Amino acid sequence: MKSTMMSCPLLVRSMIERAGKLFPAVEIVSVKPDGARIRSTMRDLHCRARQLSAALQQAGIAPGDRVATIMWNQHEHLETYFGVPAIGAVLHTLNFRLHPDDLAYIIRHAQDRFLIVDATLLDVFEQLRSRVQFERIFVVDHGIATLPAGTESYEAFLASTAGGPIYPDLAEDDAAAMCYTSGTTGVPKGVVYSHRSIALHALALSLPDQFCFSRHDTVMPIASMFHVNAWGLPFAAVMNGSRIVMAGRNLQPAALLDLITEEQVTLICAVPSILQALLNTTDDHPGRWRFSDRLHIGVGGAAAPESMFRRFDKLGIELIQGWGLTETSPVATVSTLKPLMRDLPADQRYAQRARQGLALPFTDVRVVSDEGEAPWDGETTGEIQVRGPWIASGYFGGLQPDRWTADGWFQTGDVATVDADGYVRITDRLKDLIKSGGEWISSVDLENALVAHTSIREAAVIAVPHPKWQERPLAIVVPKNGAIDPAALRAFLELRFARWQVPDDFVCVKELPYTATGKLLKTKLRQDFANWQWDRP
Amino acid sequence: MKSTMMSCPLLVRSMIERAGKLFPAVEIVSVKPDGARIRSTMRDLHCRARQLSAALQQAGIAPGDRVATIMWNQHEHLETYFGVPAIGAVLHTLNFRLHPDDLAYIIRHAQDRFLIVDATLLDVFEQLRSRVQFERIFVVDHGIATLPAGTESYEAFLASTAGGPIYPDLAEDDAAAMCYTSGTTGVPKGVVYSHRSIALHALALSLPDQFCFSRHDTVMPIASMFHVNAWGLPFAAVMNGSRIVMAGRNLQPAALLDLITEEQVTLICAVPSILQALLNTTDDHPGRWRFSDRLHIGVGGAAAPESMFRRFDKLGIELIQGWGLTETSPVATVSTLKPLMRDLPADQRYAQRARQGLALPFTDVRVVSDEGEAPWDGETTGEIQVRGPWIASGYFGGLQPDRWTADGWFQTGDVATVDADGYVRITDRLKDLIKSGGEWISSVDLENALVAHTSIREAAVIAVPHPKWQERPLAIVVPKNGAIDPAALRAFLELRFARWQVPDDFVCVKELPYTATGKLLKTKLRQDFANWQWDRP
Repeated sequence: MKSTMMSCPLLVRSMIERAGKLFPAVEIVSVKPDGARIRSTMRDLHCRARQLSAALQQAGIAPGDRVATIMWNQHEHLETYFGVPAIGAVLHTLNFRLHPDDLAYIIRHAQDRFLIVDATLLDVFEQLRSRVQFERIFVVDHGIATLPAGTESYEAFLASTAGGPIYPDLAEDDAAAMCYTSGTTGVPKGVVYSHRSIALHALALSLPDQFCFSRHDTVMPIASMFHVNAWGLPFAAVMNGSRIVMAGRNLQPAALLDLITEEQVTLICAVPSILQALLNTTDDHPGRWRFSDRLHIGVGGAAAPESMFRRFDKLGIELIQGWGLTETSPVATVSTLKPLMRDLPADQRYAQRARQGLALPFTDVRVVSDEGEAPWDGETTGEIQVRGPWIASGYFGGLQPDRWTADGWFQTGDVATVDADGYVRITDRLKDLIKSGGEWISSVDLENALVAHTSIREAAVIAVPHPKWQERPLAIVVPKNGAIDPAALRAFLELRFARWQVPDDFVCVKELPYTATGKLLKTKLRQDFANWQWDRP
Repeated sequence: MKSTMMSCPLLVRSMIERAGKLFPAVEIVSVKPDGARIRSTMRDLHCRARQLSAALQQAGIAPGDRVATIMWNQHEHLETYFGVPAIGAVLHTLNFRLHPDDLAYIIRHAQDRFLIVDATLLDVFEQLRSRVQFERIFVVDHGIATLPAGTESYEAFLASTAGGPIYPDLAEDDAAAMCYTSGTTGVPKGVVYSHRSIALHALALSLPDQFCFSRHDTVMPIASMFHVNAWGLPFAAVMNGSRIVMAGRNLQPAALLDLITEEQVTLICAVPSILQALLNTTDDHPGRWRFSDRLHIGVGGAAAPESMFRRFDKLGIELIQGWGLTETSPVATVSTLKPLMRDLPADQRYAQRARQGLALPFTDVRVVSDEGEAPWDGETTGEIQVRGPWIASGYFGGLQPDRWTADGWFQTGDVATVDADGYVRITDRLKDLIKSGGEWISSVDLENALVAHTSIREAAVIAVPHPKWQERPLAIVVPKNGAIDPAALRAFLELRFARWQVPDDFVCVKELPYTATGKLLKTKLRQDFANWQWDRP
């Protein structure tokens, strides 16, 4: 028996059409390359997205065609999130921090037809130019740049349209956007999001117990927008009629803190490394920045250490850990407390909040070890597997089908435990575990412990080959004041870890290497320290 | 181009499976007929819903089969909301306050196979018994009743199962539940909800700017659960892991206030007439009840007068107006303020909050007059039409297809304006408008004004035939202290209304008639006063 309900597809364009109609006066703030802030409105976003739709349509972009972007978090980027999918085309946001070889491969693999690129990123494009074949290239020139040969002005393109777009009928499982994983193994792989997956992810992410989006929020993605649809923020923000702040290219901590406080931002999403920098800068200038008392921060891309939750709490800012991957849209779990947990001692509360958390509504998460599904004991580790309406069922072009189980779950490669309350805690990436003398050591646990020490700013722990133990942990740290005391650190770690789990050596560096998306680049560290000579073999 | 996302259907059982797993310890409080409170948990709800699924399946209930209920808001009713749809069967909640003729018609029309009935409502069933043919009848007997011949114990039925249910594959547009409209025109008409419509409605309703459901809430539907799926509350509450309170059969204001305060309820949904009674009782006993400071109330089914918002504000309780019908799942609009409106003078803020509000995400609302779509001027009236994924596209059996426009919108029969901010304000039901000398008079506006007067507890304004003006408004009021002063009331109304709009007479009554779902029964009043003799013709 079928229902008598309307079959209205969930489409990205419904979000912007509603916001343009119901929330036209809501402000969109966007920082230009010169630091000036452009103030426009949701009405402008709606109009310009429609202009983009019409222009693309008139230029021959048909449903399913890919339109690529190389842009910062800027209002022109935001409008592509709506203008491209509205006519059934597919927005392909390029991670411009990747190696040109990878970028060229990705563009060719995705068969991108058009490119929209910011003038300040033309150097990225020039490195690719000879290896890719865009039919048309539109430059957001900020009215200043001389356009390179073969490129056109994005603003002129928008202005060229006569009349609005003709919205084609779309099915909700049609492609709306795509991103390639910046994974360090194998070739980059494309994930193709649907209108449905984007809409459902936006609804779930907006719930009060998840990231909690309201029209009373001012939302600012600090994570680069090319990274997994800007974590879904543009969609959730527009769906709820939130005010939006786009930070542009200047990601220096002081500039971001100025923007956050001057614009009274209330909801941020960012990776831990940037947040760490924001905290450090705030500490260096006590009282300089006054945050909105509604400010809450979704952190993802990596696990935030407990110490980060404590530091933000002191500023009256709620940090919320989320977890996911490009393949999961990205948010699959969020760690907010259950009512009874609010009465726990502070240490336990922080431990709970620092976990990856509970599966969102309509998503299923399980942790699978060699013995089958792991019991919820907080100890048994296994790989996280995920299933749900905003989880990828395959890669574009059918690459690496072995990432999915026979019964249809995505195998994330993240190693985790589940506690008795159902909270997932990532202990490591499969490839980041250290196997010493047949026993596993979690590099993540050691890193989290190290950054809680007063002398340490950042820490990475990697496996280094060892003549006796196969592998041993080596800690690479950025000290706070130029020096560390290895014996003190060892003693500090031994309070929480078995002796054999503690790193054998501590190396000081000025900074750690990060991927384009702010993840610690352990492959680089493993290369750099591959020939490390142990003092005590 | 299709996406590479998983095609996971949105199913009601996903909600209860997740809640049973992630929120097993959350409490469910249910009031028995004798007033005792049964305390169980989400784990129990999950287990018992599964038992019900298994028992129904073993008794031959197949996907699409209808299972009817005649129950109060009680935990056994709650479990049918999940146990019945989980196996693809269709929950049909019966409005036991309808006339037996209507009920019998509805049961036959829906072809209900099984009935689950509370022992305290067996008299309703006995009046129907000879006219309907249930295959099996299960009585929730609270361990006390002697079962009538031909009926079975619900608890024994649950206990009879060996093993769990075998969940069949379901599509998200499969039927999950159905309700008949209690409309006063024509035969009752069935609306069949899908798993998808229920899930999407629950997600949208839970958003921070709508009714805002969290696992930190204690949710209590006061509106009868047979009414439009209990307004979706059971689904939203379970999806978010909220604590749930079921009030049972005692809807006396003092009993409800005891329950609300002793259980520290934080989210209620109710019709204005019950809320009015709660307010009056609270006023009669100042300081007796201490509400949770998180308490917010969704009001629907009819428009709450501005005075009600003011009175709840004084108690520190946020009242939120929602609007919808059986055909809209039910919530289609919610009136929460936009950020800038928080700075408006109090009167304007209350006027805004008392409107029906803004369309929810993914729903479209338009107001259509004879001249086409009404401008957003707050003045032009027209009929509200609705479209969206949780709006009915037809009635069960194809009745009254003329309720839908050729372009697929549902015509609600509610007359409204839209203000410049997009907020819908209902001015009347089409059939409740008063046409005096060719001009329309809104009975709703007059009623709202009257209840703001200190001498009036409740008010209804109806059209009464008039020799000169075709129709004239007559006010029927329940006075606060036994008496009213018609001249003073007239003067009071003339502050806000044109003279010709003011009722010609005021009649005092002890109480107003309401429908089973708490709506003012104007048809009854129109009958009672059809032969009213005007003093001044």
